[in-house]
Amino acid sequence: MDKTKFYLEENEMPTAWYNIQADLPEPLPPLLHPQTKEPTILPPFLFVDELNKQEFSKERYVDIPEEVQAIYRSWRPTTLFRAYRLEKALDTPAKIYYKFEGTSPAGSHKPNTAVAQAYYNKKAGIKRIATETGAGQWGSALAMACMYFGIECKVYMVRVSYEQKPYRRNLMEVWGATCVPSPSTDTNIGRKILAEDPDSPGSLGIAISEAVEDAATHDNTRYSLGSVLNHVLMHQTIIGQETRKAMMEKVGAYPDMIVGCIGGGSNAAGMFLPFLKDKLDGKQKNLKIIVVEPTSCPTVTKGPLAWDYGDVAGMAPIALMHTLGHTFVPPPVHAGGLRYHGMSPIVSHCVKLGLIEARAVPQLATFEAGVQFARTEGYISAPETNHAIRVVIDEALKCKAEGKSKVILLAHSGHGHFDMAAYDQYLSGKLQDYDYPEAMVKEALAHLPQVSR
Amino acid sequence: MDKTKFYLEENEMPTAWYNIQADLPEPLPPLLHPQTKEPTILPPFLFVDELNKQEFSKERYVDIPEEVQAIYRSWRPTTLFRAYRLEKALDTPAKIYYKFEGTSPAGSHKPNTAVAQAYYNKKAGIKRIATETGAGQWGSALAMACMYFGIECKVYMVRVSYEQKPYRRNLMEVWGATCVPSPSTDTNIGRKILAEDPDSPGSLGIAISEAVEDAATHDNTRYSLGSVLNHVLMHQTIIGQETRKAMMEKVGAYPDMIVGCIGGGSNAAGMFLPFLKDKLDGKQKNLKIIVVEPTSCPTVTKGPLAWDYGDVAGMAPIALMHTLGHTFVPPPVHAGGLRYHGMSPIVSHCVKLGLIEARAVPQLATFEAGVQFARTEGYISAPETNHAIRVVIDEALKCKAEGKSKVILLAHSGHGHFDMAAYDQYLSGKLQDYDYPEAMVKEALAHLPQVSR
Repeated sequence: MDKTKFYLEENEMPTAWYNIQADLPEPLPPLLHPQTKEPTILPPFLFVDELNKQEFSKERYVDIPEEVQAIYRSWRPTTLFRAYRLEKALDTPAKIYYKFEGTSPAGSHKPNTAVAQAYYNKKAGIKRIATETGAGQWGSALAMACMYFGIECKVYMVRVSYEQKPYRRNLMEVWGATCVPSPSTDTNIGRKILAEDPDSPGSLGIAISEAVEDAATHDNTRYSLGSVLNHVLMHQTIIGQETRKAMMEKVGAYPDMIVGCIGGGSNAAGMFLPFLKDKLDGKQKNLKIIVVEPTSCPTVTKGPLAWDYGDVAGMAPIALMHTLGHTFVPPPVHAGGLRYHGMSPIVSHCVKLGLIEARAVPQLATFEAGVQFARTEGYISAPETNHAIRVVIDEALKCKAEGKSKVILLAHSGHGHFDMAAYDQYLSGKLQDYDYPEAMVKEALAHLPQVSR
Repeated sequence: MDKTKFYLEENEMPTAWYNIQADLPEPLPPLLHPQTKEPTILPPFLFVDELNKQEFSKERYVDIPEEVQAIYRSWRPTTLFRAYRLEKALDTPAKIYYKFEGTSPAGSHKPNTAVAQAYYNKKAGIKRIATETGAGQWGSALAMACMYFGIECKVYMVRVSYEQKPYRRNLMEVWGATCVPSPSTDTNIGRKILAEDPDSPGSLGIAISEAVEDAATHDNTRYSLGSVLNHVLMHQTIIGQETRKAMMEKVGAYPDMIVGCIGGGSNAAGMFLPFLKDKLDGKQKNLKIIVVEPTSCPTVTKGPLAWDYGDVAGMAPIALMHTLGHTFVPPPVHAGGLRYHGMSPIVSHCVKLGLIEARAVPQLATFEAGVQFARTEGYISAPETNHAIRVVIDEALKCKAEGKSKVILLAHSGHGHFDMAAYDQYLSGKLQDYDYPEAMVKEALAHLPQVSR
């Protein structure tokens, strides 16, 4: 009997996060202040000191506080699966493994950082956290994390999602968070936008602005971000470290290839960074790392590596990253997440250094892959994850064509239980592909901040 | 560090189901033919021989076919949790454990029997299975199971649920099943009802009749039931056997009390039957087993033990069971499952023999318990499961009052990701309690079949 699942026991769970900044062959560029354009830290009125320290730390390992480990143990270590039935359906000699983050109570990898961020805020005496959410995956993860530490949580949810996806909102409310549609009447910027357009559907950019204003104007309140930043990616390295340990100690194999989807980049990076260390150490020179994005939001594959604001309002720090321009709005036909205009500076830096490879895949092909996964492995995957599954299937079929028995590792970011409407649209032929036009990328470049570095 | 989760490895998974019929101190009464009222087997045009054989078997253990085990291993053995945070919130000396079936791809315990039933049908050359579903939990589990074995699956879903809960239907479709609203134009009975009432919202009774007619009138087609029957309960004993092994070998404790919710009875019985064997063997005389039902559908606590039809149309076999009358319709205020008019004959028999105890709990108290569970343990539970959680909390508080450190084991049947609308209704104050009136029970007794046994 071949094993389908590979567990680590709780006492085998890594007790420190891995910080790639200790090992990068070339250091990360700084963040720049949006006005002065001089190197800066994260705004202290938005982030507590410990998270700001982690953002720029060069320590190789940062201990995971016992309080955070205790909550991780509610669902971690997560299971590493061998995808026997998918392999068989593809008739491939490739060996496919997937690390499944869908068993966390919030259903994705997001709680790995949400719990850590809530903990450090609590420790710093913060009583309240404000954040934004699009489809609600991040908002629900933070709501859950705040619940564990008795912190108030206020989520500004893009109005169109708030109305179309009430179940993610309900999830936040069950965990005790307050969730309002954005634009809301709770902030100056929200009221201003509503005065001009009472029917505004909202946008992620507006929601970010509201959450930031909320944090800046309330006592004992901070802001929280679910991806992109260095400390967020570091918290996610629990995924890759667990997987590496399970592969080496339980499976007895090392991946030839790692595949993960990227929006802000935290799930893919959480998986690949601990393996990338092996590559940088010269131990696994042939390891191939592929990050996958939608053709409708092709940040890395079509956007330049450029200095750009982290937010649409131009109030967040400026980072050197791949970007479609901070004014980017995903096309309405795009159903899933992975919508951010920029990319995590760490992921962009790794692309620039040639350590990882980015690919863009069209929407219909991702759902086709997700349905094939569900019809073999059983699990319904998030639309985001389907992007990575698409490339895993493509690579496994390539292995078949070439007669190669590669070990392919999929970073499976979570289940799609709250995304069934998108599957319905796909199955009923209502979804479309969209190739984001080069001309629009060029257009956006005109609006990048002027940085003389 | 105290462990939160207790795993069995795949090679520790039980390889046989446990059949309580081998050990009952008094044998189960027979099933009776709905017309002749003579002892009968299950209709062979609806059930394949192997399942009919299992229904009446007195063999203590029935081997789980390797093909079924291989699929079980996609998510089994499931995890046994210690509910530390719930215990702490209740400030109770009780030790609470829960076996969580929510990590199966369909999100509940239902696939344990769906996979077995699909396998035996496949083995018998059946190409197609028809079934009914209310809210969709059983339909989605069977859809998944049929997918694994390449069997066509046709699900008749109560129309009002089909329209109100599209996501469960989408789930079935992703797994390749065909799901139609019932009443449908695909059966004689469906067409007849639609002719009389084109806007019929449907009912579980109508959907059963359509599925049965479908199976009876199509080649190579059989019917499948998700609870109530002896073979279904037997397939679910994988839950209790795994839990018993994990409690004894990994935890080092034996439960003082087991709590599970009952609709047809398969989840609770799947958990308690392997422990009940210890009680019958004289090894665990003080083990207390509590099964929990809604006050709005109080089959065991208010219904008599009587001979009644298994279905509303009076075409299914007659069983001796607790019943609210086969014409019972749950009140519209009832939000969750656990809606069947009768009860599994095995569960009813155990109640009659004084081996287990039944309790009814009102709806608002179950959601209050579910929210408390979510705000401590993180996981969002199905409304059905919340009934059992209510009693676990009540018993844990009793332990506190009495200063007793009992070991309480909860049969956690699944997650509530597709039931968020019910949580929303609860949180917004729109749910109500309902006490099913004694007078209506008495009224229904007049319609029971006349059986002279």
